[in-house]
Amino acid sequence: MSAASPLSVIGQVEQPRELPTERVDRGPLLGLPEIILSRRATQTFSPGPVPKRYLDAILQLATQAPSADNLQVWRYLVLQDAESKARLRRVAMDQPKLTEAPVVIVALGAKHGWEPSEDAVFDETFRRGAFPPEMRELYGRMARQAYGYFDRSVWVTRSAMIGVSFMMLAAEAYGFQTAPLEGCDPIALAKEFDLPDDIEFVCLLCIGRRAGPMKPYSGRFPVETVAFAERYGEPYRLDSEAL
Amino acid sequence: MSAASPLSVIGQVEQPRELPTERVDRGPLLGLPEIILSRRATQTFSPGPVPKRYLDAILQLATQAPSADNLQVWRYLVLQDAESKARLRRVAMDQPKLTEAPVVIVALGAKHGWEPSEDAVFDETFRRGAFPPEMRELYGRMARQAYGYFDRSVWVTRSAMIGVSFMMLAAEAYGFQTAPLEGCDPIALAKEFDLPDDIEFVCLLCIGRRAGPMKPYSGRFPVETVAFAERYGEPYRLDSEAL
Repeated sequence: MSAASPLSVIGQVEQPRELPTERVDRGPLLGLPEIILSRRATQTFSPGPVPKRYLDAILQLATQAPSADNLQVWRYLVLQDAESKARLRRVAMDQPKLTEAPVVIVALGAKHGWEPSEDAVFDETFRRGAFPPEMRELYGRMARQAYGYFDRSVWVTRSAMIGVSFMMLAAEAYGFQTAPLEGCDPIALAKEFDLPDDIEFVCLLCIGRRAGPMKPYSGRFPVETVAFAERYGEPYRLDSEAL
Repeated sequence: MSAASPLSVIGQVEQPRELPTERVDRGPLLGLPEIILSRRATQTFSPGPVPKRYLDAILQLATQAPSADNLQVWRYLVLQDAESKARLRRVAMDQPKLTEAPVVIVALGAKHGWEPSEDAVFDETFRRGAFPPEMRELYGRMARQAYGYFDRSVWVTRSAMIGVSFMMLAAEAYGFQTAPLEGCDPIALAKEFDLPDDIEFVCLLCIGRRAGPMKPYSGRFPVETVAFAERYGEPYRLDSEAL
């Protein structure tokens, strides 16, 4: 394994332009509630490719996600070659969809490789006017205090999972289907793909087109059992009118 | 702190119906690319409330997110009372938006409290027909193998962050603004809110309406520097036509 994962370019760029405005099947983009309600973990993928125009857009939208202090510690390994996907499958519980799906993303988090660019990122945030210049010193100090509270693996997982979630929903919005997976041996993965030492495995995301029927809905715990009002254990009650 | 975080209800329910079909300002729902591109971390919130109909919908959509083996280890503490938010602010770096925003969600992960219900969740997945019955034993065995690879704090953070991401985008889709925050002392939080021992702090999410101007865009690293093609470090090149 290599020792470091430096960014090769520090400067930040503007938002993407000219993203596709319709689904890959030429249908109109749906509203987010419909996208969320129609999403299932895809069980079997057809071999049809994800056109590059769409894959580019999905990656560009994923990188628009928020991250801790805009440090963007997510890293994405984009696998499309059959041989790469077969190597991944060997370290990821032999899951067939890893070789079936036309695109498999290995989401990773950089635990330390960003540190040399920390001040450059903060400076750019201030240069763009997000905060008054006199707050710059306090901003850096508070950021470092916040990092101090957390295990670095947990910390990179937070930002990277927001990125993966945006990627998954962007792919679904454009008419593709997805499957998030976590079954993977992170040590064997790092060895197989020669990942730098500071790189944390986060999860896998298959992107493509579903083959066969949609997986049945698996159900969810009622909101009242996982959301609490004001104090832990006090159920958050949905308005019965809204049910 | 209490010792356990059992679910009070095990049975799973169906998808929500009758969600709002327009934004809180009566405008039409936007496509996901527009939602993502117009989202910023909100700096100042106005005191106007999030109507319960919308907050219910946002929580219902958040709980439709995928999670590891559908175990739904996310837990959400929904704070709307001024006194609760003031208590949170005291353990969360005194951040003003925690008392300004009408709704603050404390996202949490249950590291062990779900274990007694594990088989019931898997049984329901099979009862609903997601997989052939003869796979039930293998399914449980593979799930437990996958958990074995990971630190439990990282593992709950993954699922809970997908939930938070869906929640954030659902709120933005309905015309609210959000601010994800992670600055919080997790030990002081657990004490202040009497959280069960197995509950992991994940992040905070403010939801409300922005006061004042939108924060300037902070820029992003070019896709080529954070996404790699086939092997780590090999830049994923966007099609220049798409730029």
